[in-house]
Amino acid sequence: MDHVLHLEKLPRTVELQRDGDGRTCFAYVDQRKLPTDLVFERTDVWRAVVEAIKTLAVRGAPAIGVAGAAAVALWASNGGASAATAHGCAEASGQFAGELAAVADEVAAARPTAVNLAWGVRRVVDVAQAHLAEGALPGEVADALFDEVKRMEAEDEAVNRAIGAHGAQLLRPSSRVLTHCNAGSLATAFFGTALGVVYAAAAKGKIARVYADETRPVGQGARLTVWELARAGVPCTLICDNMAASLMAKGEVDAVIVGADRIAANGDVANKIGTYGVAVLAHHHGIPFYVAAPTSTIDATLADGSGIPIEERSPAEVLPHPMPGVEVWNPAFDVTPAALVTRVITEKGVFEPSKLVY
Amino acid sequence: MDHVLHLEKLPRTVELQRDGDGRTCFAYVDQRKLPTDLVFERTDVWRAVVEAIKTLAVRGAPAIGVAGAAAVALWASNGGASAATAHGCAEASGQFAGELAAVADEVAAARPTAVNLAWGVRRVVDVAQAHLAEGALPGEVADALFDEVKRMEAEDEAVNRAIGAHGAQLLRPSSRVLTHCNAGSLATAFFGTALGVVYAAAAKGKIARVYADETRPVGQGARLTVWELARAGVPCTLICDNMAASLMAKGEVDAVIVGADRIAANGDVANKIGTYGVAVLAHHHGIPFYVAAPTSTIDATLADGSGIPIEERSPAEVLPHPMPGVEVWNPAFDVTPAALVTRVITEKGVFEPSKLVY
Repeated sequence: MDHVLHLEKLPRTVELQRDGDGRTCFAYVDQRKLPTDLVFERTDVWRAVVEAIKTLAVRGAPAIGVAGAAAVALWASNGGASAATAHGCAEASGQFAGELAAVADEVAAARPTAVNLAWGVRRVVDVAQAHLAEGALPGEVADALFDEVKRMEAEDEAVNRAIGAHGAQLLRPSSRVLTHCNAGSLATAFFGTALGVVYAAAAKGKIARVYADETRPVGQGARLTVWELARAGVPCTLICDNMAASLMAKGEVDAVIVGADRIAANGDVANKIGTYGVAVLAHHHGIPFYVAAPTSTIDATLADGSGIPIEERSPAEVLPHPMPGVEVWNPAFDVTPAALVTRVITEKGVFEPSKLVY
Repeated sequence: MDHVLHLEKLPRTVELQRDGDGRTCFAYVDQRKLPTDLVFERTDVWRAVVEAIKTLAVRGAPAIGVAGAAAVALWASNGGASAATAHGCAEASGQFAGELAAVADEVAAARPTAVNLAWGVRRVVDVAQAHLAEGALPGEVADALFDEVKRMEAEDEAVNRAIGAHGAQLLRPSSRVLTHCNAGSLATAFFGTALGVVYAAAAKGKIARVYADETRPVGQGARLTVWELARAGVPCTLICDNMAASLMAKGEVDAVIVGADRIAANGDVANKIGTYGVAVLAHHHGIPFYVAAPTSTIDATLADGSGIPIEERSPAEVLPHPMPGVEVWNPAFDVTPAALVTRVITEKGVFEPSKLVY
């Protein structure tokens, strides 16, 4: 069952670019328009990137890590550096550093749960501070940030390919894999985490079929996961979230693989709402439950998952037309205890959740 | 926390009626148009009732039991009896009986899973045969079927009120109840089964809040359950199906109560897709899982749930616009093993699923 994979048909979801005239732009796929339209947007305004993250035009923990870093780089290239250089040198650097910190805070606060966002922003801020400490001018810092974001994009793909290679070893030939949400190429710079494992395994004939939970209320499974799997040539079947239990009871699921938005030090995993329920179901049916994520998803500052902030989003996502007397609860994420996670797959290998190396 | 209930605001969902001119009509709420519009339809054509059942305009196991019986009565009153009486007496009765059997088969086959449909049809066919055996004329049989359906409507409400009274005893004051799909007044002639328990308990101050799974893909929870709860004055919160696990983990659910479409002799329960998953989750969190249904839902001919036919519906319910390369699995029901059912509540009392009395 060797499938011919067509990964070249998958778009680059997030990409920092430099125009011929030297202007820096952030290009991204507006994922709200998939699967109907594959639309690439381009902006040179850092706050537009923040808005794209908030509105889920750009989503997926690794992708928003890159996008967050790109937003800061965009500010440095297109606004911060030039404004600052209008002043004297020392004053300019001081003003630049101050504004950079404010921009970084605003970008990092765009969404609360995925730690990759804060991680990506932190990474470019660290680079900026190191350069500033060495006396670099704002314009030089801006160039360094651009280069850093490009490194992050390349690294993210390399990390995902390593996750894929490690994870593929866990699967038997002709596996039927269930996934929740979209932890695919669309959720990353390229290749994906959970679906990275699928792609690596499919190349080795190990994937018979992927079952995708539609993932209410935003529909990342229905709109994104099946779109990219079909495009890449992987056999896939869409189900409603509430059908996963029946599928497992029928013996149709050999493994569950999901991504993660934040992993606590003890291996508790925050991921898209519904993941925890799937983990309980997998446990009940004796099906391995794998979490695939880069080490940048691990938040060593949190002892366990109880400290992970869970974003609550608008009731309108669940109920477009409000009904008098009807309340709505719409958490965007949940926390799966480490005890329900069979293994965590990172670029460094395959780990028991309680023994993560990062 | 005594709520003022407004059950009088709930519509009669299915009702056989007789016009001033003696014509028999079936009146029903087109549930596809809720919650936006409360539309009552009326038809005197029995096949229109079959179509209403197939298209989910009329749904809910007890309601389609009544509707199925009403369809047969409609045929007898408005077509069968008059056509047959055009012939001689003995010949007329023979022709009537033959056509009745064909009509009954077609009505009973409208949907496969809920046994109440076949049960309702069987009940009026038995009445017809008894009358025919006693030499009744087709017109007399038609009148007897009309009366039988009216009895079924009244009985259904009485049965549901008994279910409610029995079930309410299982709940503690200020309970937070999770339900799946709509087993409410809309799913029955009146009052509801699972929501019948809620209404009976709410009248005693035992309901703090009902959490309603939206119940993809048809949305019976989002469109029907919260609509009728809000209308009746019961505090309610809508969640996506995949949020139930988190809600349970937070300690927000004291009991799960659902309806049933067919219960096998051993207590295995077929109900709306997603019910089984909720049962697994309730079990994992130590939350009681109650099934509320009339004894007409029990299929004593089936030893266990493996023999229950599971209706698969159109992929378009899940994915309105087909995507090349993407398959869809859309079972409308699942089977919850008796081991996961804490108690079955019928009009006869509260039973361990393995010790059903019917």
